[in-house]
Order: sequence, then structure tokens, then C-alpha cells
Amino acid sequence: MDEEYMREALIEARKAYELGEIPVGAVVVKDGTIIGRGHNSRQRDQQVSSHAEMTAISQACAFLNSWRLDDCTIYVTLEPCPMCAGTIMQARISHVYFAAEDPKAGALGSVFDLSVVQGFSSYPIIHQGLLAREAKNIMDSFFAKMRDKRRKRTDEL
Amino acid sequence: MDEEYMREALIEARKAYELGEIPVGAVVVKDGTIIGRGHNSRQRDQQVSSHAEMTAISQACAFLNSWRLDDCTIYVTLEPCPMCAGTIMQARISHVYFAAEDPKAGALGSVFDLSVVQGFSSYPIIHQGLLAREAKNIMDSFFAKMRDKRRKRTDEL
Repeated sequence: MDEEYMREALIEARKAYELGEIPVGAVVVKDGTIIGRGHNSRQRDQQVSSHAEMTAISQACAFLNSWRLDDCTIYVTLEPCPMCAGTIMQARISHVYFAAEDPKAGALGSVFDLSVVQGFSSYPIIHQGLLAREAKNIMDSFFAKMRDKRRKRTDEL
Repeated sequence: MDEEYMREALIEARKAYELGEIPVGAVVVKDGTIIGRGHNSRQRDQQVSSHAEMTAISQACAFLNSWRLDDCTIYVTLEPCPMCAGTIMQARISHVYFAAEDPKAGALGSVFDLSVVQGFSSYPIIHQGLLAREAKNIMDSFFAKMRDKRRKRTDEL
């Protein structure tokens, strides 16, 4: 089932890809039901908080009419940044599955690991690497396309 | 001027107080103009991201039509949590002034300090303690009122 939910997160990532956004997707699941979905839409929205996880969490809060997401699991295609990891912990989400690592901004192990900082009131359990290759392929394909575009623009000058 | 902006953040905190929310307020300033304001409204909204800083930053992004808030300063009455500190860094905000410390969840020195974790692409300069007593007074008054209410409810049982 975890793989199935991560595939839903990958579907969200592809939506971001099609929109020209860095392709990250997320879903929030409670009791076997997807109660929130999101894809990165930061360029379109020009909102710093329009990361996939934030949108999925916001939908889940609206669905449950609760800012606390106890007993929920989030599946996300890229390791959360500090903003998203902080939001996950604030919401008391129980489990985080992330696919690809983010060496540039990852806050669950890559740059640092928020989930092992002592002193907070709630900690999720972290599961890393599920469908990581699929998630990384989408990212690599996106950045290759961006580089191509940039090269074409430079050639046209 | 910094004190004036922090007083605006305190006005926001009082709005939260009146609504029965933990009294935290924030303003975002660019070139001498307040471009975003917010107060904690998490209980009313039942949204985990309804912290004062998040609302003020969202308004500022909308005002500038940009998810990047370079050369902006945020004034907030309580030390930001990891979610808010992460958002501040994601938005490339230049300066953070916070009034009272938050020993339970503060991510700019109290529980840990996100602004000294090596490896991110942007760091704000942190200024701590401006009007801290005023901010702490509002918080103390709020929690005293909450305890009173709880005691009265218990007495009525």
C-alpha cells in the first residue's frame, strides 16, 4: 500500500512537471484514504509556501477540520525542506515516507535532520527511499529540460 | 524604527489575544513599508500553517507578486518555530527581529538554531529581544486567563 500512495505522490509530481514547476508531489493518508494531495506550484502562485507538502497538508487539515493530523502519513517524492519538515512536525503527522534525497535543502537527513533534534513535543517516524529512482528520474528529466531551454535561449542571442 | 515595527507586530498579537488564540503577531517590512501582517489564527482556521509569520509572509508574497522576499525584514513577537523559521529562510528574508524567546518550540536559538545549520543557500540575520517584556506580558496574561477558565470549568463540574 505504501508504494501505491507514493505512486499517487508521483502523479502529483508529474502535474508540477507539466506546469514547468520543480516536480515534487505529496499525498496525506489517514485510515487508508487520501485526504490531501499537492504538487509544487511556487512559480505559478508566487507563494513561498506552495510546496507540495504544504498544499497536501492544508487540504488534509480542511478535510478533517483540524490543524492536528495525528495518525496521518505523508508520502512525498522529495525529502522535505525545513519549512515542510517543520510543518509536518507541527501537525503531529505520524509517518513520513520520502522518495529521493535532497542534498541541497533536505531537512530529514541530508543537510540536517530535524526529526532527531531533541526538545520538540512530537516526532514523526521517517521512511526513506521508497520509489526513489522514479522520483529522481522525474527531477533529472526536469532539470535536463531546463538546461536545454537555457541553452537554446543562449544560442538565439 | 525597528521598535515601531515591533509595536505593529504587538498590535497583531493583541488581535490574536482577543480571538482566544495564542497571542503572536508579525509584520513584514520592505523599504520602510509594511507589506504583510498576520496574527496567529490556528484555532479559528484549523490550519497548521496559520501562524502569524506564515500569514504575514503570504501577504508580502502576494503584495510583491514574488515568492522571494529578498531585502525584507520580519518582526515577530515570539521566536519562530521550525515551520516559520524554515519559511523565512526559503523566502530569503534578510533580517528577523523576534521579541520573546520560545523555550518549547523556538528554532532560532531556544530548542535549536536553524540559522546556524551549515549548507543552506540563504541565511537571515537574527535580532533577538526587542520589546521582549511586552511580548512576554501578553503571552503570560493569555495563559493566566486560560488557566482561570479551566479552573472555573472544573469548579462547575
